[in-house]
Amino acid sequence: MEFQGQSIRMTMEDGLARVTLCQADRGNPIDATLGAELLELSGILMTSPGVRAVLLMAEGRFFSVGGDLNSFKDRIDELPRLVLDWTSDFHTALSRLRRMDAPVVCAVEGGVAGGAVSMMAFADVIHAADSVRFTAAFPAIGFCADSGTTVSLSERMGIARARRFILCNETITAAEAQAAGLVDHLHPVAEVRAAAEATARRLAQGPTRAYGMIKRCFSGALGRSLDEQLELEAVSLSRAAGFADAREGITAFVQKRKADFTGS
Amino acid sequence: MEFQGQSIRMTMEDGLARVTLCQADRGNPIDATLGAELLELSGILMTSPGVRAVLLMAEGRFFSVGGDLNSFKDRIDELPRLVLDWTSDFHTALSRLRRMDAPVVCAVEGGVAGGAVSMMAFADVIHAADSVRFTAAFPAIGFCADSGTTVSLSERMGIARARRFILCNETITAAEAQAAGLVDHLHPVAEVRAAAEATARRLAQGPTRAYGMIKRCFSGALGRSLDEQLELEAVSLSRAAGFADAREGITAFVQKRKADFTGS
Amino acid sequence: MEFQGQSIRMTMEDGLARVTLCQADRGNPIDATLGAELLELSGILMTSPGVRAVLLMAEGRFFSVGGDLNSFKDRIDELPRLVLDWTSDFHTALSRLRRMDAPVVCAVEGGVAGGAVSMMAFADVIHAADSVRFTAAFPAIGFCADSGTTVSLSERMGIARARRFILCNETITAAEAQAAGLVDHLHPVAEVRAAAEATARRLAQGPTRAYGMIKRCFSGALGRSLDEQLELEAVSLSRAAGFADAREGITAFVQKRKADFTGS
Repeated sequence: MEFQGQSIRMTMEDGLARVTLCQADRGNPIDATLGAELLELSGILMTSPGVRAVLLMAEGRFFSVGGDLNSFKDRIDELPRLVLDWTSDFHTALSRLRRMDAPVVCAVEGGVAGGAVSMMAFADVIHAADSVRFTAAFPAIGFCADSGTTVSLSERMGIARARRFILCNETITAAEAQAAGLVDHLHPVAEVRAAAEATARRLAQGPTRAYGMIKRCFSGALGRSLDEQLELEAVSLSRAAGFADAREGITAFVQKRKADFTGS
Repeated sequence: MEFQGQSIRMTMEDGLARVTLCQADRGNPIDATLGAELLELSGILMTSPGVRAVLLMAEGRFFSVGGDLNSFKDRIDELPRLVLDWTSDFHTALSRLRRMDAPVVCAVEGGVAGGAVSMMAFADVIHAADSVRFTAAFPAIGFCADSGTTVSLSERMGIARARRFILCNETITAAEAQAAGLVDHLHPVAEVRAAAEATARRLAQGPTRAYGMIKRCFSGALGRSLDEQLELEAVSLSRAAGFADAREGITAFVQKRKADFTGS
Repeated sequence: MEFQGQSIRMTMEDGLARVTLCQADRGNPIDATLGAELLELSGILMTSPGVRAVLLMAEGRFFSVGGDLNSFKDRIDELPRLVLDWTSDFHTALSRLRRMDAPVVCAVEGGVAGGAVSMMAFADVIHAADSVRFTAAFPAIGFCADSGTTVSLSERMGIARARRFILCNETITAAEAQAAGLVDHLHPVAEVRAAAEATARRLAQGPTRAYGMIKRCFSGALGRSLDEQLELEAVSLSRAAGFADAREGITAFVQKRKADFTGS
């Protein structure tokens, strides 16, 4: 299983889907092409049983510059409609990546701006270079934030810190981003890829379907009543307890050996 | 456009509304007068197109001591009804300040207690003196927390940290408050006002209507489903993309010059 | 008023309910017995007016090892149904402890794993030994998280940090747990009990019914709209203002003496 688009490439190996933003010369912008390709790819990843983990990375100097502003200027009168078109694809893709079973690990070796900060922030684990900077960008062109920014950044930084980052159009260093919770682990740039690979490979050997339930239970966890959330967890665990991976996990524990999960 | 109340004063200049708590001799208490005046003022600020940013500050030794306890003792049997009267004004004012387009910056030069901690915490950016202390106060008089405390403090500190602050009636230093997220920036007391002014002036030159959408999208961002929130962002950005400020922002970007936003 | 179960013991003194996990030889596991006994106990604590604070602690080397995995292996085919049975008791107990008036303080002297991390995290104030470690555990046996983990840990660590802790099956030190917000105060192990006792005794002299309103207003505070939450606070405070403890609190303030709350 492979995917080769104009803006994204995906290869599969041992249950690990490596997704690479591959328009380095343009700074890996978020545009209509990326949205359409990511939507197609998210559908493939969500429905292919062999996908156990996703590693999201980017080629070139920037992880992603965010929206493709140069393409905006020629169609400025059409923007209100175009925004609805673009977000229809891109937002749906982000929602499916968040909901699918496989965890998403992100390797950030270059700068990130605008909607790409949110695309990154939706990842379950983020390894970033200690040299990168993160820029809000939206209000610099009179835009409010899309790309799920108000959810992904609030989940990572808290609502008030995320709001300040966007309103003040802040640019923050990797260390500031880590302190605020925007990224998880920092490394010298040359070591980011290997560290993210290691995390992704480890997760690719985990109980994939239980991971999916964990992801979905945490999504909106503070938005539901305590009792609704408790029952969602109970029903999810009841189902997970019947999966082959739970049987293997419990058996391995009793036999004092490492579990050999198959993601089923 | 000006406003001169008994407890609050407001002056406008270059799109910046300077709101000053002006009952220094009483410690700027939150009472019926402040509630009524802040409600009137919030209506003025919300509906006057020229308002691009709000700077909230206070005269005297205390930013605000919170509720006016001395006034409580003479009407102790009426308190259940009075609380409903007071909160009707004050809570509505806080909700409108949070929802209006203009960002709110707060300059905190003196101590803050009770409901005033929440009034401050609703600000989008808070500059505070490194000498101030913040006191929960409510349970000291057998009260639970009003003034939006459970929202504004949870957005800034997280739910558990905010709950502990209130339940344990904590008094925390400026450094502790900053570490917990309750305030954003610390300064020597003599420099607070200028720093807050600088932030407010910068925001007063921003894309005001997009700021309003950012504020409203972040409000309740963790309470809605991911997909509802994504679509709220998409529809908001579609509208913002049609504003004059977006056109100016994109044009300025392409022309590699600073955008000249008008807030329209 | 006392309670002596197989897995939990409770004694009352001066309004303080001391709840002790007392199966040290088994590592204080969460099993059907603990669930049933904690449910019964939560009902007692919630409906006994004299309960002013709860101190939760554990005997032995572990605070709790979490689910009783050894009991899982013999009934592996029944697990989906058993999970529903167990959570019915345990989850309801956790919900009632969160909703009741009396604040809960937790003393953590030994390691904590799985669902016990969440049981601990629901406490309003957590004192822990600087030597303890906290382990997610769930995915190690192919399980997703129950025990309210997605709420209690999200309230303390934020959604993204909590999700990473669980997905990656992290084991974190006491210092890491405190930095992430999972526990409140660290002490040498020999001093944990006394510190937690002091906090619990102080809370046991507070305005118990107002505490309950504070707990309930913070529960789900980010899940409701701002205006709904403001009105919930207003109505709660209106009721609290009519309680004997509010009258005493205001009177004591005016008389410049310490309030003598009775929890009524």
